[in-house]
Amino acid sequence: MSDNVIFITGHKNPDTDSICSAIGYAALKGEGYAAGRAGELNPETQFVLERFGLAAPELLRNVAGSEIILVDHNEAGQAVDGIADAKIIEILDHHKIGGLQTAEPILFCNLPVGCTATILTLFYHQNGKKPEPAVAGALCSAILSDTLAFRSPTCTELDKETATKLAAIAGIVDVEAYAKEMFMAGSELGNKTEKEILYLDFKKFTAGDTTFGVGQVSSMSGEELQALKPRMEAYMKDSFSEHGADMLFFMLTDIMDESTDLIYCGEGAEAAVNAAFTSDAPDRIYLKGVMSRKKQIVPQLTEALK
Amino acid sequence: MSDNVIFITGHKNPDTDSICSAIGYAALKGEGYAAGRAGELNPETQFVLERFGLAAPELLRNVAGSEIILVDHNEAGQAVDGIADAKIIEILDHHKIGGLQTAEPILFCNLPVGCTATILTLFYHQNGKKPEPAVAGALCSAILSDTLAFRSPTCTELDKETATKLAAIAGIVDVEAYAKEMFMAGSELGNKTEKEILYLDFKKFTAGDTTFGVGQVSSMSGEELQALKPRMEAYMKDSFSEHGADMLFFMLTDIMDESTDLIYCGEGAEAAVNAAFTSDAPDRIYLKGVMSRKKQIVPQLTEALK
Repeated sequence: MSDNVIFITGHKNPDTDSICSAIGYAALKGEGYAAGRAGELNPETQFVLERFGLAAPELLRNVAGSEIILVDHNEAGQAVDGIADAKIIEILDHHKIGGLQTAEPILFCNLPVGCTATILTLFYHQNGKKPEPAVAGALCSAILSDTLAFRSPTCTELDKETATKLAAIAGIVDVEAYAKEMFMAGSELGNKTEKEILYLDFKKFTAGDTTFGVGQVSSMSGEELQALKPRMEAYMKDSFSEHGADMLFFMLTDIMDESTDLIYCGEGAEAAVNAAFTSDAPDRIYLKGVMSRKKQIVPQLTEALK
Repeated sequence: MSDNVIFITGHKNPDTDSICSAIGYAALKGEGYAAGRAGELNPETQFVLERFGLAAPELLRNVAGSEIILVDHNEAGQAVDGIADAKIIEILDHHKIGGLQTAEPILFCNLPVGCTATILTLFYHQNGKKPEPAVAGALCSAILSDTLAFRSPTCTELDKETATKLAAIAGIVDVEAYAKEMFMAGSELGNKTEKEILYLDFKKFTAGDTTFGVGQVSSMSGEELQALKPRMEAYMKDSFSEHGADMLFFMLTDIMDESTDLIYCGEGAEAAVNAAFTSDAPDRIYLKGVMSRKKQIVPQLTEALK
């Protein structure tokens, strides 16, 4: 890890927003700053970086003793190792406020929009700058990814406008077609083990004394998800004790149908699900209109588990 | 307490920034929002509101069950009663990040500048609006108050520029003379009991298992402060158990001399002070250049108490 730069990094198990917003903010900040990452790239993000000819950020193993800028998260539990002994100097995010503390006043800009890349684009505007085409492509991809191509309820008008402007800079002519291509590239579910699929996009949360993990896969193909569902149910049950959580939840999100099948295991998980949600299908937890872990799953489970 | 508006409020024991930023943000937000306050007005703030013909915000006794916007603080311990059962929907602040949690993503704008009113003025600008002269006067006063008329190390260029622009809108011709008048009006130390003086601007903090309170008075008159010092030392010792803290610290800040005399009581307080500071005078804790509790006292004590 280079000593002479300040790293900008997203969360562990980084998604496209965590990687692309780190790249975008490092490009805006310029000399003395570099993009980092707190884990391996997922296939969707690999597709995006290859598409726009961008290098992967440096993998950060431990940031203890460093100054660090966080993007796309503001909870210690989701951050790179060593965060408790690092000096957080800025945070740009769009999630719930997660209880971090600092010793001194810092820039902490959290906006209720669909994507950190949208906030970053505001920062470019504020500084009278325009991202390079490749960076604009990465930021546009992050917005499409986080908002499921504007279908997620987290998506705001600002996200749409921003992605459209970025697409123009990046030379993306048909945004919907590009999004579909990106989601397909990201959905290499067939080649993966159940464990890899669980951890593609997995976060842990705490409600009272209960720790619960929530994973999510999104796919353009409902058939792919229905084939995957029994495999994941069996794997979560068999491997339950390995994941260090009291309950596990997994969202199979069908982008085109705008719905989620929620599967779960662990004592109390069924009761929490029944308290939190009303299923639209009698025989399964089929949640029509539910696509956002952050807005439509975690707050409801947190409330039910209190 | 009116049910049909969303209140915007600063911290308990409100200072001029907490009151004036609430007024300024309610004016910007318009219909459906109102300024609230989490305690009695101090004499400085009374002077400011009278000067610009502004009404005092509504006193909030308990905000449980309400939606609420916080300005000038982001720690539950400093907030109005009932905050744990309120829904915080926005936070504008310029302090360290204090560990609050929300269930959903919200606007949380914390900037490392000298005053919340400076951030608010950016929000006016962002919205293409200009504060009314009376509101501009209040916001300008808040910046002068928080930055000790630009002398505090927390003061940034943006604070200076912003206060200067606001002064022009408000018709304040000589900013330095106005600041002096405001500080004099605020410094009614002679008429107050020691207890009232301790609580004029008093905040509690936690470091590990230790709770400590830090009060501050700032004065344009060093003589006034030297007369006050033995009174406060005796009072803090006699009343120590009443204040619900393991240690008490009190800053006598001389604005013209740009220095602070720090007095304290409680087991371990002397050790913490000796670990945290090097006094510039042999016989007392005289801290030349120290004027900011937030930047120059609390982080150092927190570190020493860890």
